[in-house]
Amino acid sequence: MEPHINPHISRRYNTELEEIRTRVLHMGGLVEQQIIDAMAALVKGDSVLGDEVIKNDYKVNNMDVTIDEECNQIIARRQPTASDLRLVMAVVKTITDLERIGDEAEKIGRMAVRLAAEERPKDGYVEVQSLGNHVRQMVHDALDAFARLDMSAAVRVAREDRQVDKEYDGLMRQMITFMMEDPRTISRVLNVIWAMRALERIGDHARNICEYVIYLVKGKDVRHTSLEQIETEILGATDSRPL
Amino acid sequence: MEPHINPHISRRYNTELEEIRTRVLHMGGLVEQQIIDAMAALVKGDSVLGDEVIKNDYKVNNMDVTIDEECNQIIARRQPTASDLRLVMAVVKTITDLERIGDEAEKIGRMAVRLAAEERPKDGYVEVQSLGNHVRQMVHDALDAFARLDMSAAVRVAREDRQVDKEYDGLMRQMITFMMEDPRTISRVLNVIWAMRALERIGDHARNICEYVIYLVKGKDVRHTSLEQIETEILGATDSRPL
Repeated sequence: MEPHINPHISRRYNTELEEIRTRVLHMGGLVEQQIIDAMAALVKGDSVLGDEVIKNDYKVNNMDVTIDEECNQIIARRQPTASDLRLVMAVVKTITDLERIGDEAEKIGRMAVRLAAEERPKDGYVEVQSLGNHVRQMVHDALDAFARLDMSAAVRVAREDRQVDKEYDGLMRQMITFMMEDPRTISRVLNVIWAMRALERIGDHARNICEYVIYLVKGKDVRHTSLEQIETEILGATDSRPL
Repeated sequence: MEPHINPHISRRYNTELEEIRTRVLHMGGLVEQQIIDAMAALVKGDSVLGDEVIKNDYKVNNMDVTIDEECNQIIARRQPTASDLRLVMAVVKTITDLERIGDEAEKIGRMAVRLAAEERPKDGYVEVQSLGNHVRQMVHDALDAFARLDMSAAVRVAREDRQVDKEYDGLMRQMITFMMEDPRTISRVLNVIWAMRALERIGDHARNICEYVIYLVKGKDVRHTSLEQIETEILGATDSRPL
């Protein structure tokens, strides 16, 4: 090979790495839209929109397969090492979580279709919507942290997951109270609980993505370190108030 | 380099790939033991054993970090392609799921410690134990399918996950009935519900591992194919009765 080809190859390699990051963000955007639509379907009792969400999950799956295959090709052709390899591996793991967020959004879509046939509660599922907004924002912020390789942002989002778990637990107790007060609501409330559970899992997946960002930026050594330790190290004392 | 070095390198490369599979099975064995101990702690109300499970989770985490790092090194040094690369990528994904199964076992350990302080129900958590056995068997069988690269076994285990979900749903309804009949049990039953939820998630992770096995053996094309399609293709008509 002529030596002048090398920079070209290298430039193409950089472009490939850049493209794969862009594709992840694109996939993330689609997944976020699926959450928004699933929640709207649930809250408004819109079974057509719920069916739309179920139908569109194949798009998320296709993106997972395509990006995964591209990562394999980059590994096979470019033999990435060090931070390039960490990026590719972080992408492989991130799309696995995004694909599962898509599955959870699909489940919410299914619950929305079931609940559309039932009587609406007076509060219009206001607390579930609040949990949904919170979780969707987490996914958005996790992808933002990934796009900017911003470790502080990643730690903040990971911390949000605890708040989501607390919201979920509170909501769960409330649902149990509803069922105890009026056993006729049990089957309806159980569908709401399954939707809540899907939201809580989406929060977990967003947290996972943040962990990959931290791993990507810092290297292997911070994995499984407690959130407190990372917070103290990165965010400084002023921002490390206990949750 | 002398040409006679090549077979040596290649032999070492094969050994490395073999070793990494063995390590995954070793990690799987540890995770399985964590599930067994966590369930025993829960059922017997043994808070010492529960604490043991919580304490031992760091071993699972360490194995995750070590194997992940070894996979990165194999990719960087050996530049695997085709089925070798698929194996390494399947390992990376499998250990992520094993690590999360470990987290769920730890959660069950925490619930066991809390429940040890409460009154024991008459049935001694017999149904939760049955769900626990089922899920532990799934993890065992998923790792077995991985060890033997047995796609038929992988499909059978993936199908078990539906059964686990049904068991979970039935158990959930039963717990709600308990709470309705005697509201004083709510805080205790909620802890049982969190343990059940952890078990159901372990089932999901076992199913994920099976999907990696199928991907590994068949290549990319079967991902996101329905279980029915894969069953019909692999297991033949006699074994594809609907669940």
